Order: sequence, then C-alpha cells, then structure tokens
Amino acid sequence: MERSIQIAFGDAVRDARVNHGYSQEELADLCGMHRTYISDIERGLRNVSLENIEKISAALDTPLSVLFEQIETENA
Amino acid sequence: MERSIQIAFGDAVRDARVNHGYSQEELADLCGMHRTYISDIERGLRNVSLENIEKISAALDTPLSVLFEQIETENA
Repeated sequence: MERSIQIAFGDAVRDARVNHGYSQEELADLCGMHRTYISDIERGLRNVSLENIEKISAALDTPLSVLFEQIETENA
Repeated sequence: MERSIQIAFGDAVRDARVNHGYSQEELADLCGMHRTYISDIERGLRNVSLENIEKISAALDTPLSVLFEQIETENA
C-alpha cells in the first residue's frame, strides 16, 4: 500500500527507534530536537528537512539509504 | 571527504540529472519546481524537504535509497 512519504518516513523512524530501544524522549535528545517534534514525525505530520533527516539517521545509527530502502520495500 | 548533506544531495541530484540528459529547466518542469530552485539545490544551498526530495527522486527515476547510497559512498 502506497503511504505518503511523510507517513512512510515516520513509520521507518518509529521502527528503527523501537528496535534501538529508545523512547521518543531519548531519540529527541540524541537529535537535539523536542520530543513532540519526534512524535509529530512518527505520526507523519512533518515534512522533515534534509538536515533533520540526517540527524535522525545518525542518531539511529541507520544510514539514510537503509532507512529509505525500508520505506521502498514496505511501499512496494 | 565529508560534505554537508545539502552539498552531497545537490551533487547527487546533478549527477543523476546529467546522466538522464536533462537540463535544470527540464528537471524543474518534471518536479513542478522553478529552475532556480533546482539550481540552488545542486549548489547545496537548500535544506530540501522530504516531499521535494521524493518529487526529485521520482522525476529522476532514481529510488531515494539509491540516491542516498551514492551520497554515502562518495562521503566515505
């Protein structure tokens, strides 16, 4: 099922965060962002910028290519 | 050499655009964006949003995972 890129990215971030055992608060701290921003991203409510995408990817120790590959696989 | 994500993304977009034989104008039309915005992106001047990243990826017929893999390879 084709989800919007915002929802698909949010799902991928939540999956990676949960796999790492981080709370939203912990991920937000790692990224230098507010917890509510992470919550919004995970709910597909944010059109995240390139720099914030990179910060999240680094905090989750997950290359962007892997994060987007997961999105493409689940959207297929 | 580690480039900023904006510069790295701009280089990857330019490479893919040139490989497709598109001018900036043609890519801009395909994305529904202005040519100067594409030019700014390629010069690393824009903190591009997720939705615009997806539009560019679709216009270049290049999955985001592939675009970011190229960035990661060149940044290594």
